[in-house]
Amino acid sequence: MILLHKKTGKKFYLENKDKDFNTHFGIIKKEDLNKEPGSIVKSHLGEEFIIFEDNFNDIIGYLKLGPQSVHKKDIGLLYSLVPIYSGMKIVEGGTGSGILTSYLANSVKPNGKVYSYEIRKDFYKIAKKNFEKLKLLDYIELKLKDINNGIEEKNVDLIVLDTPDPWNTLNFAYESLKIGGYLASFLPNITSVLKLLDLNEKFLLIGIYENFVRKWEYVRGKVLRPENFEIVHTEFLVLFRRI
Amino acid sequence: MILLHKKTGKKFYLENKDKDFNTHFGIIKKEDLNKEPGSIVKSHLGEEFIIFEDNFNDIIGYLKLGPQSVHKKDIGLLYSLVPIYSGMKIVEGGTGSGILTSYLANSVKPNGKVYSYEIRKDFYKIAKKNFEKLKLLDYIELKLKDINNGIEEKNVDLIVLDTPDPWNTLNFAYESLKIGGYLASFLPNITSVLKLLDLNEKFLLIGIYENFVRKWEYVRGKVLRPENFEIVHTEFLVLFRRI
Amino acid sequence: MILLHKKTGKKFYLENKDKDFNTHFGIIKKEDLNKEPGSIVKSHLGEEFIIFEDNFNDIIGYLKLGPQSVHKKDIGLLYSLVPIYSGMKIVEGGTGSGILTSYLANSVKPNGKVYSYEIRKDFYKIAKKNFEKLKLLDYIELKLKDINNGIEEKNVDLIVLDTPDPWNTLNFAYESLKIGGYLASFLPNITSVLKLLDLNEKFLLIGIYENFVRKWEYVRGKVLRPENFEIVHTEFLVLFRRI
Amino acid sequence: MILLHKKTGKKFYLENKDKDFNTHFGIIKKEDLNKEPGSIVKSHLGEEFIIFEDNFNDIIGYLKLGPQSVHKKDIGLLYSLVPIYSGMKIVEGGTGSGILTSYLANSVKPNGKVYSYEIRKDFYKIAKKNFEKLKLLDYIELKLKDINNGIEEKNVDLIVLDTPDPWNTLNFAYESLKIGGYLASFLPNITSVLKLLDLNEKFLLIGIYENFVRKWEYVRGKVLRPENFEIVHTEFLVLFRRI
Repeated sequence: MILLHKKTGKKFYLENKDKDFNTHFGIIKKEDLNKEPGSIVKSHLGEEFIIFEDNFNDIIGYLKLGPQSVHKKDIGLLYSLVPIYSGMKIVEGGTGSGILTSYLANSVKPNGKVYSYEIRKDFYKIAKKNFEKLKLLDYIELKLKDINNGIEEKNVDLIVLDTPDPWNTLNFAYESLKIGGYLASFLPNITSVLKLLDLNEKFLLIGIYENFVRKWEYVRGKVLRPENFEIVHTEFLVLFRRI
Repeated sequence: MILLHKKTGKKFYLENKDKDFNTHFGIIKKEDLNKEPGSIVKSHLGEEFIIFEDNFNDIIGYLKLGPQSVHKKDIGLLYSLVPIYSGMKIVEGGTGSGILTSYLANSVKPNGKVYSYEIRKDFYKIAKKNFEKLKLLDYIELKLKDINNGIEEKNVDLIVLDTPDPWNTLNFAYESLKIGGYLASFLPNITSVLKLLDLNEKFLLIGIYENFVRKWEYVRGKVLRPENFEIVHTEFLVLFRRI
Repeated sequence: MILLHKKTGKKFYLENKDKDFNTHFGIIKKEDLNKEPGSIVKSHLGEEFIIFEDNFNDIIGYLKLGPQSVHKKDIGLLYSLVPIYSGMKIVEGGTGSGILTSYLANSVKPNGKVYSYEIRKDFYKIAKKNFEKLKLLDYIELKLKDINNGIEEKNVDLIVLDTPDPWNTLNFAYESLKIGGYLASFLPNITSVLKLLDLNEKFLLIGIYENFVRKWEYVRGKVLRPENFEIVHTEFLVLFRRI
Repeated sequence: MILLHKKTGKKFYLENKDKDFNTHFGIIKKEDLNKEPGSIVKSHLGEEFIIFEDNFNDIIGYLKLGPQSVHKKDIGLLYSLVPIYSGMKIVEGGTGSGILTSYLANSVKPNGKVYSYEIRKDFYKIAKKNFEKLKLLDYIELKLKDINNGIEEKNVDLIVLDTPDPWNTLNFAYESLKIGGYLASFLPNITSVLKLLDLNEKFLLIGIYENFVRKWEYVRGKVLRPENFEIVHTEFLVLFRRI
């Protein structure tokens, strides 16, 4: 499991460094693949590659994706509202392909743990493989269970829901969270947000948020301008706290 | 150092639990202040308070602020682009009041460290006290030095600059970062962004970003609508990578 | 009724040019105030002023305002969706201080007309005075009536509602509009938008819109950056069409 | 030139009503096409169509487009900053396919005029045809000339530039505008905005603007949410005034 960068910035992800690796910039030999991180190696066409260390941020881009996944910008929004750090105990509803789970587990390691509930067997399998690739299996307990049938964990710091019916989780979440713990729910429709707010009785509402990220394009000496098209809506984030 | 929540959600921050505590909801006795986190205690007016555990996210709101500070939403943006986790080695230019430093240190603990450069003595002192309150002193090395005179750390994972002239740090940053390491610069003006991009020669440009967060207001049974006014501009984030 | 600009760009609005005019840049004499538009005159302190022509866009900034008014940026949004031009027949519900009414009347003149309904006598009076200042009285029929009691006009091109309960106007609006005519409703809350959409049965929904305008700051040779604070929410615009 | 609407809201544009018209909802006979606006006619499949009046807003959607065109939302932005109405004298640089020209001409008729400069013969021809379709030829003088070689019109109310080098037009624009007149420049890159601002010496800067429009999706009884993707950048608008 190595990552290589050519000088253009293109990345390649290898699951196996026991055989030569083919790129359209040429073949890199097995011996070269096993050199120290930071080494520069050449393909048979003379193109230079850099051997990269394992890095969460690089590997996360190469994971297998199932249908549902919280967008990176919204993960950033969650982190800005609820700092997530080593030692936390987190419950997640709706593992999906495990992207958000991986961010969370990567943040709570080495002393914390993420307990993630998923009802679909196919997503469970995809997520499991992704955690393996990221070497995060020790920090995640993946459960093939419906979070709306009950949350087994107690004294939890944070519960994150990426499910279509978070109002069905409200009571279980309240019992599971410690005092001061947070409940975060990602929802694509304002109609669902409204239903969740109306059905909440016990939690303190911290806020309802949306997040837009705008990327700019740059061409040296010529152009600096915002990108023309952007995702302007993914999900609303509703944040509650148990008090 | 305890945090108390009344049922209305109002928080109080205490540096000292060795004497009775006065609030406009009544006085809470010393003995009550020293009960277990999660306990409910009463003021002499019969108002209920909950004793909270120490919590990074609560305490950060009570820190002393100097003039400069990266906005929470922009910290979230950084985390969405460069996951920051236990064990990382980070250099920061421009400690200011130490808010961003604290987020970073809280994320890299218990195995990582943040080396933060600040040229102003008054900011240095404010930041030092804030790190103490957050019990983060073990994970931060605060330096009363100009980052533009050189970066002493090597093999660094991430350098974050909240300085007005990041172009003067480019060469030192390049030498200090490990291969694959990131350089992130926060800048309020597009004119500074342009100068930084034009003067960069060695780094791969990952992107130029802005982040907007929109908060919604909710009144049960009546109103759900976006807040009228919002901060729409704080800083641009320019992200480079050493390859 | 004249407008004067000093070289700094500051504007002054005069209702009366029959006497000398005092500014903190000095006094301008009556004789000077009555010179040709475009003339440059001097105050007794030697400061230069330009005599401006009557101009809708300058005067609109000096109107008396009551509590409710559609924001300029949202007027622009309406114009981008439904071009408004000479000869149109428009009905408005909720005159308020008459700002939107004035924009509409100014656009439909000299051959069109705006029929505007207002239930509050005090707003009616404010609006009337504003139309007088703008010399738009010939193009506006202001009615002290509740639009939800019926719309007297037929074969209307556009109905614009700035009222809290537009669902009560749906049937009257349908009968009043010509085939192909538009119904535009401004609403601050998404909950009201939802109610209007759910209660609409006859109209074709063209769209639901929001509009953000971002202004940039410029200091020559130094700074170009977005303004820090901005109105990010005023009203949603729901646009229907009779087909 | 008739517009037909089926009950689904689908529109058809006909240049010729002297022969039967084919749609995938059936054939409509010539006799039916010549009925009064507002009539309901049937195709040979029994599907109902409504005969629409000529309408600027419907026809503009069927114009032939060349490569460059100011976006509708930005036209709305311009209208919100500089009301455009009957009788105004406007100069435009960069006709392109004539979309903005058409909006302007439609607003200044019947007493005003738009003088539009275009250097490319192919665009000139496309624009000319579009003006014909919209019956706006009387209100537009289209010139196959470079606006940077001089502006022939004097005492102009507004000059709008959709050209890549507006700084080359500054002096001519100043001479052409009346006192109080506006100069509006649409520019896609912030680098061009900066150049224009730096090179401007005579004009008062009113503002630098961007405009975002967000559209929401609605499915009755189910969903109300913002659209996922949106154009977030088209052009900046720089607005100056001659004082």
